[in-house]
Amino acid sequence: MADLHPGVADPVMDTMNFLNEVTLNHPEAISFAPGRPYEGFFDTEQIFAHLRRYLDHLAAQGRSPAEVRRAVFQYGPSAGLIRELITDSLRADEGIDVPAESIVVTVGCQEAMFLTLRALISGADDVLLVSSPCYVGITGAARLLDAEVVAVGEREDGLSCADLEAAILAERLRGRKPRAVYVVPDHSNPSGTTMPLKTRHELLDMADRLDVLILEDNPYRLVSPGSQVPTLKSLDQYRRVIHLGSYSKSLFPGARVGYAIADQPVLKADGTTGLLADELAKIKSMITVNTSALSQAAVAGALLASSGRLSELNAGMAAHYGDTMRFTLQGLEREFPADRRARLGVSWNMPGGGFFLTLQVPFCADNDALGRAAREFGVIWTPMSYFHPEGGGDRTIRLAISYVTHTDVTDGLRRLADFIESEVAAARSHN
Amino acid sequence: MADLHPGVADPVMDTMNFLNEVTLNHPEAISFAPGRPYEGFFDTEQIFAHLRRYLDHLAAQGRSPAEVRRAVFQYGPSAGLIRELITDSLRADEGIDVPAESIVVTVGCQEAMFLTLRALISGADDVLLVSSPCYVGITGAARLLDAEVVAVGEREDGLSCADLEAAILAERLRGRKPRAVYVVPDHSNPSGTTMPLKTRHELLDMADRLDVLILEDNPYRLVSPGSQVPTLKSLDQYRRVIHLGSYSKSLFPGARVGYAIADQPVLKADGTTGLLADELAKIKSMITVNTSALSQAAVAGALLASSGRLSELNAGMAAHYGDTMRFTLQGLEREFPADRRARLGVSWNMPGGGFFLTLQVPFCADNDALGRAAREFGVIWTPMSYFHPEGGGDRTIRLAISYVTHTDVTDGLRRLADFIESEVAAARSHN
Repeated sequence: MADLHPGVADPVMDTMNFLNEVTLNHPEAISFAPGRPYEGFFDTEQIFAHLRRYLDHLAAQGRSPAEVRRAVFQYGPSAGLIRELITDSLRADEGIDVPAESIVVTVGCQEAMFLTLRALISGADDVLLVSSPCYVGITGAARLLDAEVVAVGEREDGLSCADLEAAILAERLRGRKPRAVYVVPDHSNPSGTTMPLKTRHELLDMADRLDVLILEDNPYRLVSPGSQVPTLKSLDQYRRVIHLGSYSKSLFPGARVGYAIADQPVLKADGTTGLLADELAKIKSMITVNTSALSQAAVAGALLASSGRLSELNAGMAAHYGDTMRFTLQGLEREFPADRRARLGVSWNMPGGGFFLTLQVPFCADNDALGRAAREFGVIWTPMSYFHPEGGGDRTIRLAISYVTHTDVTDGLRRLADFIESEVAAARSHN
Repeated sequence: MADLHPGVADPVMDTMNFLNEVTLNHPEAISFAPGRPYEGFFDTEQIFAHLRRYLDHLAAQGRSPAEVRRAVFQYGPSAGLIRELITDSLRADEGIDVPAESIVVTVGCQEAMFLTLRALISGADDVLLVSSPCYVGITGAARLLDAEVVAVGEREDGLSCADLEAAILAERLRGRKPRAVYVVPDHSNPSGTTMPLKTRHELLDMADRLDVLILEDNPYRLVSPGSQVPTLKSLDQYRRVIHLGSYSKSLFPGARVGYAIADQPVLKADGTTGLLADELAKIKSMITVNTSALSQAAVAGALLASSGRLSELNAGMAAHYGDTMRFTLQGLEREFPADRRARLGVSWNMPGGGFFLTLQVPFCADNDALGRAAREFGVIWTPMSYFHPEGGGDRTIRLAISYVTHTDVTDGLRRLADFIESEVAAARSHN
């Protein structure tokens, strides 16, 4: 055997593998674990139509047949083919007005995170701040890059700016350089919280005052019902926000298309000023060269189908997820009426959108408990401890509502209530 | 302006940008620079046919319509969807017989390189060995990962195993750990050399004896005419070879699909043995999650079109490139008959396939010379010095034959001869 030491040991991922195993071993269980998009809106013929629409669009723009073929078949620019269509849709859907040059099209939002971290957290003293709990994609990318991460605990209503500022100043006192703060301001994964407008303004002011950048990750806005709080990027007067976008929820994950908006000026080696986007594209050229032209064409076709308004294209999808979230919250009220809730010591938050909500329970909701829930009660969920980079979340459960039907919700919540009842009884008999 | 220090300064890339600028500023020049595939075989309708063929294949395998939709639209396995089809084609085309579990489908070969380097060169003392000249994709990925690279000069007929062994032992004496050797054994980029069968056997023996791995990058085999020397992987008795594959030349770059074969056993943290491929997939999940399902479907459709024999599907393409290479070599003979060749001090190698050949000239073929060639003679080429990680190649020119027509070759070589004549005359009058 070769002397191999791949050096990618990942305790978080190894822990999460347990969830995959439980899911495989209990195919009949109802699972509130996967944060995957609902599949009822998928239609393979749409892909052919989207591709065709983009090719027709290129021709209508005056591109010759040879140029159209080149766009789809040949190597393309590292920063992407469809930047203008993306900026058009950002203006229409989000009030984000940035030049196309500030966009880098990426292989899903994950690559956008990876490129951004590689560009920003490059010195030994550089630090990324995240909330705890936190999306595992960003902490995974940081681990791979040996980038230092400091977690700031969320309060019940999400991240507090004062806590964040204290953490940044504490890091500075230790001689370290906090470079950026990663946030999911809307219907966050995993906690389901949404950052209030007031906190967004505070965060932007703080970022400018303390000279840090904000990484705004926002996959759930366009699949959530009703009107949304403005994005940090749309409020960003000082170019402090790098916006990380994804089409995995608003279109489909299989495309693997996301993007970064990085309109920050950077001083280049030759003394001239460029955009951070150019640096991200340069890094990308050494990782994936460019994003699949085929995938970009499919996304572009979808954007063209709705005249750039994904919010309109996705109205039905947003209504569906909103309906499932409401149905789940009603189901929790039904399973846990006030007296039972008080007796068991159970509570939950009430997100207005997104894919996730969190449930507080009076026992340790770890992998052992998850195993019992799957085996004895036929219900699967995600331990929130997976999402706490520095420990915590031991008595919290994440429920994903994106992949389940109403019948699943009704049956699944009943099973969940039985499981919780059993855990509480076991704890009491044990004490 | 934010205090940004992206830390991706890249002298090689900055130098290569000059080539892009020259190309943009001289659109009428004939360019032997781009190693891009010829576009005459591209046909957009093929993409629709390939996608349809793969969807039909899934249905014929008994997948339900919902399962087919899921495969294309949903998140997929990080290691890839189409591993069985890839292993079938590797058996048919290359005599490489590996289990599907040893494959990781990647976003082009570039991601395969990046994942492999991240897995293998992770300690401060770890070293990657490359040839000099060397493909810039591997040195770029290494730079991004702060991975140490040691270059071993190629001889006229390519890399010598004795030189390589001496370099490995010298590194060990310095206290460093040579982990892997990167090679492009067939029709290499940039030099156009092919490693003889004897050297392949020597290299495999040496890898086992000295406990290093071989990274075999092989994009040009299936687009080269005639029969090929067996791949290192097909001769690999000791699982010392990680084979890096690309469909960018054999199908099309816009798909961004490549793969790594990594059938090496690794000891995992829990004491069990796994495959290196699993570790690469784990790293991939933090960079790009999975390769575009759409792109994988298009590649799979192409593999199915030829019953897995890309060599047959590409027979016309391989003949085309072979013909252009022969035509270019004949053109060089015509422009530089023996007496003129001797007078000017010009020589070149004679690759039997691939996209590149190299020309020795008696003057410094740097960016200044390239600027004069484009401006005054209307011909563009690539300075070989771009490809020497530790300096060298100052008097060598790379000519790419993949993107040019016969007319381009005839006119371009005449212009090149005039340029060389002028440089030699200038050097003589200067002396």
